[in-house]
Amino acid sequence: VRSDVSLGIGDDAALLDVPAEHQLVTTTDVLIADVHFHSSATPHSIGHKALAVNLSDLAAMGATPAWATLGMIIPDIDERWLEKFCDGFFYLAKLYDIDLVGGDTARGPLMVAIQLMGWVPRGAALKRSGARSGDHIYITGTLGDAGLALMHLKGLRDLLPDQAATVRQRLDYPCPRVELGIQLRSLASAAIDVSDGFVADLRHLLRCSAVGAEIYLDELPISKVYQSLYGEIGWEPALTSGDDYELCFTAAPDRDDEISTLTELFDIPITRVGTVTIGSDIVFFDREGQQHSPKHTGYDHFGV
Amino acid sequence: VRSDVSLGIGDDAALLDVPAEHQLVTTTDVLIADVHFHSSATPHSIGHKALAVNLSDLAAMGATPAWATLGMIIPDIDERWLEKFCDGFFYLAKLYDIDLVGGDTARGPLMVAIQLMGWVPRGAALKRSGARSGDHIYITGTLGDAGLALMHLKGLRDLLPDQAATVRQRLDYPCPRVELGIQLRSLASAAIDVSDGFVADLRHLLRCSAVGAEIYLDELPISKVYQSLYGEIGWEPALTSGDDYELCFTAAPDRDDEISTLTELFDIPITRVGTVTIGSDIVFFDREGQQHSPKHTGYDHFGV
Repeated sequence: VRSDVSLGIGDDAALLDVPAEHQLVTTTDVLIADVHFHSSATPHSIGHKALAVNLSDLAAMGATPAWATLGMIIPDIDERWLEKFCDGFFYLAKLYDIDLVGGDTARGPLMVAIQLMGWVPRGAALKRSGARSGDHIYITGTLGDAGLALMHLKGLRDLLPDQAATVRQRLDYPCPRVELGIQLRSLASAAIDVSDGFVADLRHLLRCSAVGAEIYLDELPISKVYQSLYGEIGWEPALTSGDDYELCFTAAPDRDDEISTLTELFDIPITRVGTVTIGSDIVFFDREGQQHSPKHTGYDHFGV
Repeated sequence: VRSDVSLGIGDDAALLDVPAEHQLVTTTDVLIADVHFHSSATPHSIGHKALAVNLSDLAAMGATPAWATLGMIIPDIDERWLEKFCDGFFYLAKLYDIDLVGGDTARGPLMVAIQLMGWVPRGAALKRSGARSGDHIYITGTLGDAGLALMHLKGLRDLLPDQAATVRQRLDYPCPRVELGIQLRSLASAAIDVSDGFVADLRHLLRCSAVGAEIYLDELPISKVYQSLYGEIGWEPALTSGDDYELCFTAAPDRDDEISTLTELFDIPITRVGTVTIGSDIVFFDREGQQHSPKHTGYDHFGV
């Protein structure tokens, strides 16, 4: 039990100590079968992912995670299922020193509702607002693999068994960028996690910051599996598919060297993919400097 | 928007300021159709009750409520349903100055998951532990009406239309004892809210405090509707039925006068129903001083 948990599960409510001069950061996500996880997802992966997607939200705030509550609806008494769910959940919770401080369960169609709480030093949180014209736009890790896994599961894309296993891992076991988010507190001007899809989430960030962006399509970070399929699928999955749980953030150009050192420190690629601009549009450029406006690339719904 | 909400809905997470020298108090409840509300419950009452049951948990801690997050699964797009749910939810939220700081929705079988957060001065929270032998045991309001409403809905008990309406109001619109709970911080030695049933919840309190209790059956506070039915139904609904969301608390005998003044201040009956004892049993006495041990009254499952 963490020393900041005065009272955990077992009373009417939990009693928690937020450190002095820090702000509480809290997020909640509801996950249900067939929407947020595929029917073939294992209970272990569901336990992992339910916590991971909330950790990703805190990472995007630069917050240190601390406490979680877990609300569950479970279809029938299947102790093995629940045990494996808990294995997945608590393995990740232990990794980040998160205490479960509240819970509630009921019988019904599978549902997992997690609230995750953490903190940041007062005034240090990363927000979606704060990006300024001229800032560089960065992406952690790679984009599109979770989307490829979903396309494969839906029978829309053939993959070799090794490829399928690799991208499925990305879909079922997202790696929240918690430590990286904490380091970004003093570096980034704005941040968001990529859950809905890179362009959709970038658009949220730009709108909150009242700015636009140019994006360099050929710089978008993609995995080796994606690279081998690029000729067939192009940039679309990297731009539009969700579930990657990487961070998209902006930073002033003079922080570029410091950001490079983070790549080495955490062994996570951090790739500059664009520049913040005045206005409110996203403009896409290819290697040749050819502009792909949303209209021309068919991404009408990308208009900010 | 409350001044302690630095960032509400619209970013990756909410950013909140817990007052200095205070502790965060947090509780969560998951409510689903047919389990936590009857199929005939109106969306307005569901919105009210979903928040009220969480408020009742904070009341039992003596906490001041401040912020809520709301996770919902909704069967289909029914804007009128959602509007009425929100009316019920936000009416109560406004009454207690609670800001909604996070939310998530999905499509599926009806489910409401609320997390409610608030605070207490450091060290001032009411806990289930803390009751001492000799303390008096009190109940706010009356017991058993919500249970009568459920029995009526299940066709197990005939009621006159006025009676049915009165107890149905108690089932659908519980009154969380928030202000009273805050006043009890400095008076009560232990507290719990009555959600599962008086004896079941008292048993939780006694176990956490490592004490027993004697309960005076004829002192149990019941409504006029209940009184008119007492000849038929006896004490059982008051002892065992849930959903009342009253507070059960203990206090040292010399605080009795101060507790009486709370009844006047809040216009809520506060009734002494027993005494904390050494040991771990609950013993029931009637008006004549006749002991009804769990075995004799048939309440075997009441044994602590």
